[in-house]
This record gives sequence, C-alpha cells and structure tokens, in this order.
Amino acid sequence: MPKIVDHDARRREIVAAVWALIARRGLGAVTMRDLAAEAGYANGALAPYFHSKDEILQAAFQHAVESTNVRAEKAIGDATGLVALRRLCHEIMPLDERRLLEARVVVAFWDRALHDPRMAAVHASAMDQWRQRMSQCLAQARAAGEIADDPRDEQSADTLLAALTGFQVNALLVPHATTPARQQAALDGLLAAL
Amino acid sequence: MPKIVDHDARRREIVAAVWALIARRGLGAVTMRDLAAEAGYANGALAPYFHSKDEILQAAFQHAVESTNVRAEKAIGDATGLVALRRLCHEIMPLDERRLLEARVVVAFWDRALHDPRMAAVHASAMDQWRQRMSQCLAQARAAGEIADDPRDEQSADTLLAALTGFQVNALLVPHATTPARQQAALDGLLAAL
Repeated sequence: MPKIVDHDARRREIVAAVWALIARRGLGAVTMRDLAAEAGYANGALAPYFHSKDEILQAAFQHAVESTNVRAEKAIGDATGLVALRRLCHEIMPLDERRLLEARVVVAFWDRALHDPRMAAVHASAMDQWRQRMSQCLAQARAAGEIADDPRDEQSADTLLAALTGFQVNALLVPHATTPARQQAALDGLLAAL
Repeated sequence: MPKIVDHDARRREIVAAVWALIARRGLGAVTMRDLAAEAGYANGALAPYFHSKDEILQAAFQHAVESTNVRAEKAIGDATGLVALRRLCHEIMPLDERRLLEARVVVAFWDRALHDPRMAAVHASAMDQWRQRMSQCLAQARAAGEIADDPRDEQSADTLLAALTGFQVNALLVPHATTPARQQAALDGLLAAL
C-alpha cells in the first residue's frame, strides 16, 4: 500500500520552513527552487502542494496570522477585558525580530492582494477575526466596569486595527520612530482613551 | 541650438500621466511600453527619464505624497490647531476614489521598499514631514487651550500616523469596515482623546 500522506500537514510543514526566507529576501528574489531547497525538497517537489509562489505567499500570510493567534491565546490565558485586549494587541504588533519578519510577509501579501480579490478576502478574514476577539474583550471590560458604558466598540476596534496595521508598515520602514517602546506607548494611549 | 528641455518637469509630466495606470493594474501587469503609451510617448522614449518601473513607482509615490500635501495646505488655509490637524488627516486618508488610487500606489511602493533602503527612506521622509506638520498643529492647539497641557505630542503623532497608514491598507482590502464615515469616526475619536 502507498504511504498515506496528509496533504494539508505537508503544506503546513513546507510553509513553516520557507516563510522566513520569503520575508528576508522578498518573493521576487526567490525561486520555487530556492523555496524547495529551504524546505529540504528536490526542485519540482513542491508542485503537488503549491502551484505558484503567490500560493506559498498566501499560505505564509495565513501561517503568520495563525502563529499570532496561537501566541495571543497563550498570552491571554484566563485573562479578560482590557488585560486580554492589551495582550492580543501586543502579539499582533511587530515588537520583536520574529514579528518583524512576519510583518514583511504581511506587507508583501497586501501588494499581491490589491489585484486578487481572493487574497484580499484572506486579509479581511484575519481583520474580522481580530475585530471579533477585540469586541469580546471590550464587552468583558464594560461588564467589569473597566471602560465607559458607551457603545462605541465598532469605532474602538476600527481604530485599534488601523493602528496595528500601520505599525506593521512603519516598524519596517520607519524603525527609528516605531520602536517597541513607542508602539507600546501609543497602544497604552489608545486603551486609556477607552 | 537644441531645444532646452526641463528634465525634472518632463519626469513630473510623465508620472502625472501614468500613476493611475500603475494603481489600477499593478506594476507587475504593466510594461514600460504600456507606461510610455499612457504618457503619449513612443516605446523606449521614457528611457532618458526613468531606467526602470521601480523608478517610476517611486516617482508615483512621491507624486501621491506631493498631491496630498498640496491638497492639505489648500484645505488648511489659515486654519490652525485641531481644525488644521483634522484637515491634514482628512487629505491623507483614502476617503474618495482619487485617494483610494493613491493608496494603491502607496501599498505597492511599500512592498518594493522592504528590500530597498533608498525607497524605505522615501517613505520615512513622508512620515517625518507629516509628523512635523502634526507637531506644529498640536503646538498651536495647546497654545489655544484646545488640548490638554500634557507633552505627549510624539505619542499623539505616532498614533495618528499609524492609524492613517493602516487606513491605506484597510480601505483597499477591507472596504466594508473602512468606509469614509468609519475612518472619520475613528479620527474624531483620536482627536477627541487629545
């Protein structure tokens, strides 16, 4: 009998191996051969899993989002309300080398998504997921009396998501003005304004 | 005598003619021939002005920034303080079709800038310019008693710039949650928190 291979698991293994190479060198500068080599595959052996570099980029974006969510839920633990919201935001923000690499994947992905509605939907889905998690934290914070009893959660989530999205760009392209300390000070100001 | 041609003026004319084509179709999908045709030039005639599509993209980014600044100073007029700050932010935000097209140029430019420090410096320079203008408005607002006498201008500018940068992305990729009304509500919240 042929060995049973879990196709999705294999795709995830490949992406876990190659995403940082895409982040460091850029999608334009790496070939399918480079990506196969990074994953320990022979040239051409990625074909059953990915048809193009764009498919790998999309999987790398989803990998970055899922890694963020795993880290966030671990950091949040049993916390609720504003504490949970701050921890969620910290995991989305590019505060360390790993997350700066993830941000490079994210920015590259946006450029491709401009001209591919399916890719745009993948970004929108990540945003919607974070918006829902934020709304949950805000509802907990309101129930606990941590924030004003003022139903502006949509606006609060819009503002946080815009700022977190902007940090991805500015931490890479304006690092001197987007240090971890300054990102965190800005976030603290946004949370205090709630 | 040969006709004297203002090289920089010609470059600006070309960019004014082609930037929207890059925005609509994406840099990858247009050729130097397409760009020349859009500007009314024969194939090859752009070579004295631009050596590559990336050079044209960089000029298109600068064109978007300069157009924003011209619109902003016109909108600001004699206004100062928070009124001026709101008008500046409104001109940076992708609130209409023209500015949504500009945002497409901006997002495409970021992707290239990830791997080109000179291009990153062009983005950083635009951010620094807006930061200075914001600081000026905040100082006026403080002198007029419009905002708290609390020296957190750096943090305020960081937050505004992050949110305005994020809107560029989300207005394109999550338009249902980044309408002009929702962008403006988020901005009003940020200004009210000052």
